[in-house]
Amino acid sequence: MSELTRRELIAGAVAAGLAAAVPASVRAVAPPPGKQAAGFYRYKVGSFEITVVTDGVNRMKLPDTMVGNATKDQVNEALAAAYMEKDVFVGPYNPIVVNTGSKLALIDTGTSEAAFNNTKGVSGQLMNNLAAAGIDFKAIDTVIISHYHGDHVNGLLKADGSLAFPNAEVLVPAVEHKYWMDDGEMSRAPKGRVEGMFINNRRVFNAEVMKRLRTYEWGKEVIPGITAVDTSGHTVGHTAHVLSSGSDKVFVQADVTHVPYLFARNPGWHAFYDQNPVAAEATRRKVYDMLVAERMMVQGFHYPFPSLAYVEKTGNGYREIPVPWNPTI
Amino acid sequence: MSELTRRELIAGAVAAGLAAAVPASVRAVAPPPGKQAAGFYRYKVGSFEITVVTDGVNRMKLPDTMVGNATKDQVNEALAAAYMEKDVFVGPYNPIVVNTGSKLALIDTGTSEAAFNNTKGVSGQLMNNLAAAGIDFKAIDTVIISHYHGDHVNGLLKADGSLAFPNAEVLVPAVEHKYWMDDGEMSRAPKGRVEGMFINNRRVFNAEVMKRLRTYEWGKEVIPGITAVDTSGHTVGHTAHVLSSGSDKVFVQADVTHVPYLFARNPGWHAFYDQNPVAAEATRRKVYDMLVAERMMVQGFHYPFPSLAYVEKTGNGYREIPVPWNPTI
Repeated sequence: MSELTRRELIAGAVAAGLAAAVPASVRAVAPPPGKQAAGFYRYKVGSFEITVVTDGVNRMKLPDTMVGNATKDQVNEALAAAYMEKDVFVGPYNPIVVNTGSKLALIDTGTSEAAFNNTKGVSGQLMNNLAAAGIDFKAIDTVIISHYHGDHVNGLLKADGSLAFPNAEVLVPAVEHKYWMDDGEMSRAPKGRVEGMFINNRRVFNAEVMKRLRTYEWGKEVIPGITAVDTSGHTVGHTAHVLSSGSDKVFVQADVTHVPYLFARNPGWHAFYDQNPVAAEATRRKVYDMLVAERMMVQGFHYPFPSLAYVEKTGNGYREIPVPWNPTI
Repeated sequence: MSELTRRELIAGAVAAGLAAAVPASVRAVAPPPGKQAAGFYRYKVGSFEITVVTDGVNRMKLPDTMVGNATKDQVNEALAAAYMEKDVFVGPYNPIVVNTGSKLALIDTGTSEAAFNNTKGVSGQLMNNLAAAGIDFKAIDTVIISHYHGDHVNGLLKADGSLAFPNAEVLVPAVEHKYWMDDGEMSRAPKGRVEGMFINNRRVFNAEVMKRLRTYEWGKEVIPGITAVDTSGHTVGHTAHVLSSGSDKVFVQADVTHVPYLFARNPGWHAFYDQNPVAAEATRRKVYDMLVAERMMVQGFHYPFPSLAYVEKTGNGYREIPVPWNPTI
């Protein structure tokens, strides 16, 4: 082959000056820039059909205190290693729908219709993508909540405060619910958590939601085939779920790690939103060591869509190996 | 947190026996299993809009002679390391459409409508996914071919032999075209290549295609913003393309590697379909070293959809870092 240099590849090359084979008059005008594909993806776990339904991707200025025990420069180094932009934190939100054959369950609800309106559709896309996936929100009979952070629970309500999933039971971790509804806990909590979370949770878990709410326990099935796993640390009642059908399994991790390019790669990093960072780290290492040992797939709420991966060990932590897109299910 | 053991996670857990909050009568029946999302994905390179349009994924029994200088066991080890099934070769096909603002160019054409019919839609999905992406096949004004293997050229024709892109010029690498149309080369070629490729290429490049065909040269722009790069070895005229707009670039590699989990990871492996395996390896190493050094994105025809990644060096070869899915372009 001839020399392949940067100059040849990159520098402005001379136009080949090809003659037009087709008269200009019959050439169609290029269509205007199009929209992105709808953000849903389907796969099977045994007889269960999983639909990952993205709620969008949030981009924000990297907080100075993103990681309590790493410097901003170290975080930026991790972003660079992941070919991500400096000083920008990119966080995807990816709820899933599980069709077990007898139940149609949504796990976590995304940032909400109100967020869609506030962000001009950058986040809060869940309802639109559910529709694109052919899933009627009225057909969702079960909503399973992993923990009480806004990007997981706010989507329970429409912008007017009414129920987003009017025919669904709302199944929540007992430990998590008790904590956020406890006035004593609220009185002892730091101001930021009260204003950012306690008050929000008391807004979201309104009378209509409470009518449909049931708590579930760790170590038991929430509905047949979906087992709740204690993965506390990120919050006191943070819960992951194992989907199991036939011999197939997937670990739905919620926020055991936030974005993998920071926190799977650096499991020892303590993110500012980990309520008990030491417990969260212990959970993270335990879960990820298990995923590696079992060669079990993980579905990550904050992984890049469609958020399904295997995990392998690296020197300092873990790396996700995305499961290849299958265009035929 | 409580003990997180495999047993707790995996073993059959006791149903939580939650009471139904919603009467059965108002519960919607779960919808029947749905279809996969349409296989297209959009991103920008400067002012260019790229649409990756998948043609599908082929699954076949792993050939014993897949890699000339590695054993089948070694190939299976690489599959296991990628969490892929043993003895199965999974190969995606991912053409792209480039809207430069003045041209609407398709790079490579996939396996064809005939393949769609023969495989019941497992491959040959290009035309359907183009339509899903809102791209009228009649609006494609330029088809750019990387090399003359069936999964890249067969889609030029519909099942009845007529033009799949009736308003497009067909731009082909001069070296590649000359080789496959040369009767002397055909007379000297091994029987398998004659039957599998020479005869197929003379079928595909029929009178109608030839009327619209123009050859292009390496190191020059094929159309403004798309430069042809000599990446011979896989075939004698195998060509990659650099898309360049403003300060943004992407390297459209065609078959510099086939699937990355085998051939980026093991650049020294000689696949049976590399016509000149030694030259193909040299090209592969040169291109991938450049991609690493320049931190340039690669668009890989045989990468898992949407096939856009950065590349980093590993001990023995290279690893792709998929660019995170962006649901808003």
